[in-house]
Amino acid sequence: MNIHPMWENYPELATELATTLHLMEKRILLKNKDIETAILSMIHSGGKLLRPAYQLLFSQFGKNRNVEKATALAASIEMLHTATLIHDDIVDEADIRRGLPTIRSTFGNNTAVYAGDYLFVCCFKMLSNYSSSLKSIQLNSRSMEKILTGELGQMDSRYNLDMTVKEYIENVSGKTAELFALSCFVGAYESGTSERFAKNCGEIGSNIGIAFQIIDDILDYTQSSKTLGKPVLEDVRQGIYSLPLIYALQENPKELHPLLEKRESLTDDDIAEIYTLVHSSGGVIKAQNLAADYTNKALNAIEKLPKTKENTKQILLDITQTILTRTN
Amino acid sequence: MNIHPMWENYPELATELATTLHLMEKRILLKNKDIETAILSMIHSGGKLLRPAYQLLFSQFGKNRNVEKATALAASIEMLHTATLIHDDIVDEADIRRGLPTIRSTFGNNTAVYAGDYLFVCCFKMLSNYSSSLKSIQLNSRSMEKILTGELGQMDSRYNLDMTVKEYIENVSGKTAELFALSCFVGAYESGTSERFAKNCGEIGSNIGIAFQIIDDILDYTQSSKTLGKPVLEDVRQGIYSLPLIYALQENPKELHPLLEKRESLTDDDIAEIYTLVHSSGGVIKAQNLAADYTNKALNAIEKLPKTKENTKQILLDITQTILTRTN
Repeated sequence: MNIHPMWENYPELATELATTLHLMEKRILLKNKDIETAILSMIHSGGKLLRPAYQLLFSQFGKNRNVEKATALAASIEMLHTATLIHDDIVDEADIRRGLPTIRSTFGNNTAVYAGDYLFVCCFKMLSNYSSSLKSIQLNSRSMEKILTGELGQMDSRYNLDMTVKEYIENVSGKTAELFALSCFVGAYESGTSERFAKNCGEIGSNIGIAFQIIDDILDYTQSSKTLGKPVLEDVRQGIYSLPLIYALQENPKELHPLLEKRESLTDDDIAEIYTLVHSSGGVIKAQNLAADYTNKALNAIEKLPKTKENTKQILLDITQTILTRTN
Repeated sequence: MNIHPMWENYPELATELATTLHLMEKRILLKNKDIETAILSMIHSGGKLLRPAYQLLFSQFGKNRNVEKATALAASIEMLHTATLIHDDIVDEADIRRGLPTIRSTFGNNTAVYAGDYLFVCCFKMLSNYSSSLKSIQLNSRSMEKILTGELGQMDSRYNLDMTVKEYIENVSGKTAELFALSCFVGAYESGTSERFAKNCGEIGSNIGIAFQIIDDILDYTQSSKTLGKPVLEDVRQGIYSLPLIYALQENPKELHPLLEKRESLTDDDIAEIYTLVHSSGGVIKAQNLAADYTNKALNAIEKLPKTKENTKQILLDITQTILTRTN
């Protein structure tokens, strides 16, 4: 099983992540082998498995930790994540993800709709088989609801030149941060911590998730398409204005408005100009500062977590710092 | 609340179905009011609410029937059904359903993807809030898995000129019958019947669902597009060969193969010829006979159910006979 190199310093975690991948693989069974293979290759395309990793790490804080259960729940979270990616690719009309063709580009939107639904259902099945209580399923489905309202919120804000930082954070809190929050919460809660402790873990996950998404959005303005594994500033053409651009719009509406009003018909030169304007108006730096605020909130809260014999706290500090200072 | 006229002879059931609709309405809350309205108008577009009706009727057999719970679970089943319809309309590129524009035709496929996902999640949330046990959620998610593998199975069989009756029944057992089975099972089980009794109810639902889908597919060959509220034989252009055509293909491959090999480029005249050939090869009559077999299986099993003071058995016999002899 190929695990992302970022985990090689944490052999126990790497082993559990390999088990997680293996569990997902075993669960995905379709008569249509083409679609099965497509879903499996998406799972094996070298994603970082961040959400399962956080879930597994936070499960170290409970007194009833059980590897089989922890990895199964980690698999269910990653299946949910993969389901949302497959559907996001339909909505974003994305042909490439992580350098590989997307399911919708290979098999068409139709197959991608059902492939995503199928993974949603696999996630629920796994959750219901391994969760300790109905309450856990209730909390899970509440999180999923937040993720979807975040996605729909983002669609709603398309081409909105007056989008505020607050609205951006609201959408991000749903569409990205909620799944991080859920991973951390479920990890702790299902290993037997108190609900209060688990909620604190969820809060940490939420701050990590917000910082993570801001950094992802910053990378659109600092990386080449080759490094990113997807086209640069594709989002802008689709009317999704992320944090660096929102800050730039506040600073320099006069030059940016006429460009953005071209919507889908933005040329490559226009995109290059937007790219430059976002940098010159300080949009990137301001976004970096806000990401740092959320990162620090998360790191401070991790510092306050209790010690475990597996040195979980230090690992959490390390990986959180690593992913939130990433440059690709 | 507008309830389909088929329920007017059953005032108690009609009241509970109105409550079910109301519960769905209350649960669908989105910031984007356009999408919210679109989902709500789909819910209010005069569907028969068959699945909730069966669920509510079968819940009369348990000793712990509770109206609040029964209607909430009925709402969750109907939300699941609506979610699958919204996604089916994307896959089928359908512009019209029940005489109204579909969500994908009004808002685009993108919105329809998330709108369906949102309803899936609402369904899970409601299920997890009202089910009595994790086991119930497990059985629910197993059913949902069958529905999705049925949908994917049908996609897999597109343009297959050698499709067998067995394969057709397999796909239908998943994509349509499973939700009927689930409705009947959950209705009984969650009102406190034994699991064995509830499984028998699920079996009845499955037979009803198979007969229901066969009749739906027969109507494509016996109704005008106006009566159906959707274009006639659209399925055939998309390579979905249903039972009447499968029987006809066995009888008269020589005339049908060259026509069907035109796939998407079938003209209206071709469609008219297929329509005639399916009738002349006895495809419609054979399909009607098979539907009658499943209908009779269901009716015989209903006959054997115990008496309730609400006369549930008679209502089940009546409505099952009504919907399985429908001509539109």
